Amino acid sequence: MRRVLAIALSLGCAAAVADRLHGATAAPVIPAETRRVAESLRESAFTGTRASEWVRGLIDTAGPRLSGSPGDKAAIAWGLTTLKALGFANVHAEKVMAPHWERGVETGEVTAPHPHKLFLTALGGSVGTPESGLEAEVIEVGSLDELAAKKEADVRGKIVFFNKRMRRTADGAGYGETVPVRSKGASQAAALGAVGVLIRSVGTDSNRTPHTGSLRYEEGVPKIPAAALSIPDADLLERLDRDGKVRVRFTLGCRDFGLSETANVIGDIPGRGNPEEIVLLAAHRDSWDLGEGAIDDGAGCGVIIEAARLIGALPKRPRRTIRVILVANEENGLAGAKAYEADHAAELPRHVAALESDLGAGRPTGFSWNAGPSAEPLVREIAALLEPLGGNDVRSTGAGGADISRLVLAGVPLFTVRQDASRYFDWHHTSNDTFDKIEPEELDQVTAAVAVFAYVSASVPEPFEKIPVERRVLPPSDGDRPPR
Amino acid sequence: MRRVLAIALSLGCAAAVADRLHGATAAPVIPAETRRVAESLRESAFTGTRASEWVRGLIDTAGPRLSGSPGDKAAIAWGLTTLKALGFANVHAEKVMAPHWERGVETGEVTAPHPHKLFLTALGGSVGTPESGLEAEVIEVGSLDELAAKKEADVRGKIVFFNKRMRRTADGAGYGETVPVRSKGASQAAALGAVGVLIRSVGTDSNRTPHTGSLRYEEGVPKIPAAALSIPDADLLERLDRDGKVRVRFTLGCRDFGLSETANVIGDIPGRGNPEEIVLLAAHRDSWDLGEGAIDDGAGCGVIIEAARLIGALPKRPRRTIRVILVANEENGLAGAKAYEADHAAELPRHVAALESDLGAGRPTGFSWNAGPSAEPLVREIAALLEPLGGNDVRSTGAGGADISRLVLAGVPLFTVRQDASRYFDWHHTSNDTFDKIEPEELDQVTAAVAVFAYVSASVPEPFEKIPVERRVLPPSDGDRPPR
Repeated sequence: MRRVLAIALSLGCAAAVADRLHGATAAPVIPAETRRVAESLRESAFTGTRASEWVRGLIDTAGPRLSGSPGDKAAIAWGLTTLKALGFANVHAEKVMAPHWERGVETGEVTAPHPHKLFLTALGGSVGTPESGLEAEVIEVGSLDELAAKKEADVRGKIVFFNKRMRRTADGAGYGETVPVRSKGASQAAALGAVGVLIRSVGTDSNRTPHTGSLRYEEGVPKIPAAALSIPDADLLERLDRDGKVRVRFTLGCRDFGLSETANVIGDIPGRGNPEEIVLLAAHRDSWDLGEGAIDDGAGCGVIIEAARLIGALPKRPRRTIRVILVANEENGLAGAKAYEADHAAELPRHVAALESDLGAGRPTGFSWNAGPSAEPLVREIAALLEPLGGNDVRSTGAGGADISRLVLAGVPLFTVRQDASRYFDWHHTSNDTFDKIEPEELDQVTAAVAVFAYVSASVPEPFEKIPVERRVLPPSDGDRPPR
Repeated sequence: MRRVLAIALSLGCAAAVADRLHGATAAPVIPAETRRVAESLRESAFTGTRASEWVRGLIDTAGPRLSGSPGDKAAIAWGLTTLKALGFANVHAEKVMAPHWERGVETGEVTAPHPHKLFLTALGGSVGTPESGLEAEVIEVGSLDELAAKKEADVRGKIVFFNKRMRRTADGAGYGETVPVRSKGASQAAALGAVGVLIRSVGTDSNRTPHTGSLRYEEGVPKIPAAALSIPDADLLERLDRDGKVRVRFTLGCRDFGLSETANVIGDIPGRGNPEEIVLLAAHRDSWDLGEGAIDDGAGCGVIIEAARLIGALPKRPRRTIRVILVANEENGLAGAKAYEADHAAELPRHVAALESDLGAGRPTGFSWNAGPSAEPLVREIAALLEPLGGNDVRSTGAGGADISRLVLAGVPLFTVRQDASRYFDWHHTSNDTFDKIEPEELDQVTAAVAVFAYVSASVPEPFEKIPVERRVLPPSDGDRPPR
């Protein structure tokens, strides 16, 4: 997709722009009183917030909460109770029918040349193996392209082992580079006659904790079982494979239970003057089943609830409504996002901005935006307000997040607080996604950034220009690529 | 135990001693030619060795190798084959009858106030639970002392949760402080009527990878099931417990299979002049069953094999024999150490030194010794030779290691290369003990230190003075405390 805008403002540049805007050449877009309140919100949140308290409440009460699980239902109840207790208005659940898939028993072992236990986990949506497991010789490839270059005779009857390493990057870019192996590998291997797929986990750690995440089966190609190996197990398979032929047996007990009822949970901080206009703050309420869903996306839920609560507690609320949505089924279907889009279609033209928080609990590093070009001066002023939080990397590409990215079709301006994701992919989609991975101080910084963004967006006289019609296209999807 | 000697020489001090010894006041103990060869060995090993290759061979071939397991047998075969291939003399296995315990199925969950899966693992030697599991209310204590202060009425019928945190220290001292909870907690809790024990893993990580390790049941007290929670799970239980009553259910399928045959594997680099005198290099061949036993103690096996091999490859071998022993059953019984002590009783007076390598793959930081006082000048000269490797922390306390510590009874001088254990207890006794945790360059440094020690000990005209008779007592044992 051609990027119409591609601006990267450095700290110095953003500051210079702000200076210029305060100088003789242009009047500031943000009124002085709004700016003062936003700065005060930022200072107060930077000092400490209750964001991690909400994260703890969600995960200690509900635990893992994949669509259709008991934890999913507990999290809906927790969301309703919590938003009501915190004084949100219009608190309610909106029904969503979402995929219900369960993992079941999982085992893995190298059977030749020497026996070794393998730590692996099914990719989300995978079909199961026969109960007695699946055993075959392994063929290792480094990428989808490398598999595409193989002859069918080399692949047929084998287990394809995708051994692609993910780069550790502060912005999480390594994920997008690697995740197509997870989302597309199974069907590509099946098309060449493979009987199963193992991938090196899409992650940056070295723990015996494999990373799950969704796959997508292509129509017209046999569905074969696919699992992720922990990274030390991928290393083992790589060492053994390079010494000679390796055979692996694995068992996946996972099953598809069709659709199951779940819900988006919504609560509003009503605007004073134009309550029908909405600034949407999104995070996803569901999580994968392996861990406790603390960083993905308990953190985001805590951030948006707390940012909205802080604004609701101000002496004078902003003119527009701030809506918090705890979205269902981000991980394996995006049914919650699609349901919101359908249920609120009439309201979408009055959505002045949407921001999703779904990149863990790391400190803010910047700001991404996707709106009409005339929004730029306002975006730059907001970015300047966030600068003391450490967030000075402002980009006009990639804003969104899986749950709000479809709103591009309605032209809703999309925003993301960029975060330090250096360690996020050590824990993402693993059993290690637990509360201890949250640093409350860093979460406070993210909360401050989201609160400032939301307050200003809900207060300025003229909101952001909508995304121009010619750019209202869905971004390419590779599973659940994180927001940038 | 009163420490008879308590000398800590700093880098500067060791260097000064070496200077003095080369000056007018005293002739050096190490002959010039021996020193020259030792320095050359050090330089060569520091440049790179094959130690990590032997570690890889052991773990890729045998995998986990708890006494009585198929991996244990595979590791015996690997040891014999490898030592023969590398040109060791007198390569053979010596039969050992060792405990055979198997883990079986393990499950855990919080059942109230909210359901949560728990990641836990049986402590080594634990009895199993009933097949349907064991469910009870939890009582949390921070230490053995805190439990001792409880009334029986508070403990009876409950699961005691020992929530003692291990400190991260470079020398591993945090382990010795914490491990009594693991070794003694079950019997102490049972004496007060508890039905089960959960401990916070004795480790320094934050992964969902619980740390196993042996417990010791006291005679005359009921044996109750005991397991270690992963550290994030201990955090969860702590949070839930402080909010109110918590109930836990867990299932341990572990079983005791009595004694099973295993073996110590031995190989010699024969001395030229006094081959009947022996410098013993020990590491343990067995490992816990959860990981691959790379750092514990594949690393030690790699180090001692390579150190001896390098000495055997010298143009002129030292006067005494260097014996490598890959010891059986260190983890859950010390049967290998006891068997060597019994089988070689007649030979022990001719053991001039013993060194064990069993603290992972971290770089050397110093040297510990336990010998007669007149050995001090020689020890200081060896320490000075190790100084360029980073090892300048010389102590006369705590030398040993579980497999050689019993040799104190025969007065055999005991030595340890101290190592940086900062990260060792992140992985120790967990599924995460895998080959990727080995840094080959650091292992080379340890190998260099062991090679220099062994070469000098086997070469000097007068060996170390034996441990004086009045100090020939076993150190207090707390499970498998590491060497210092």
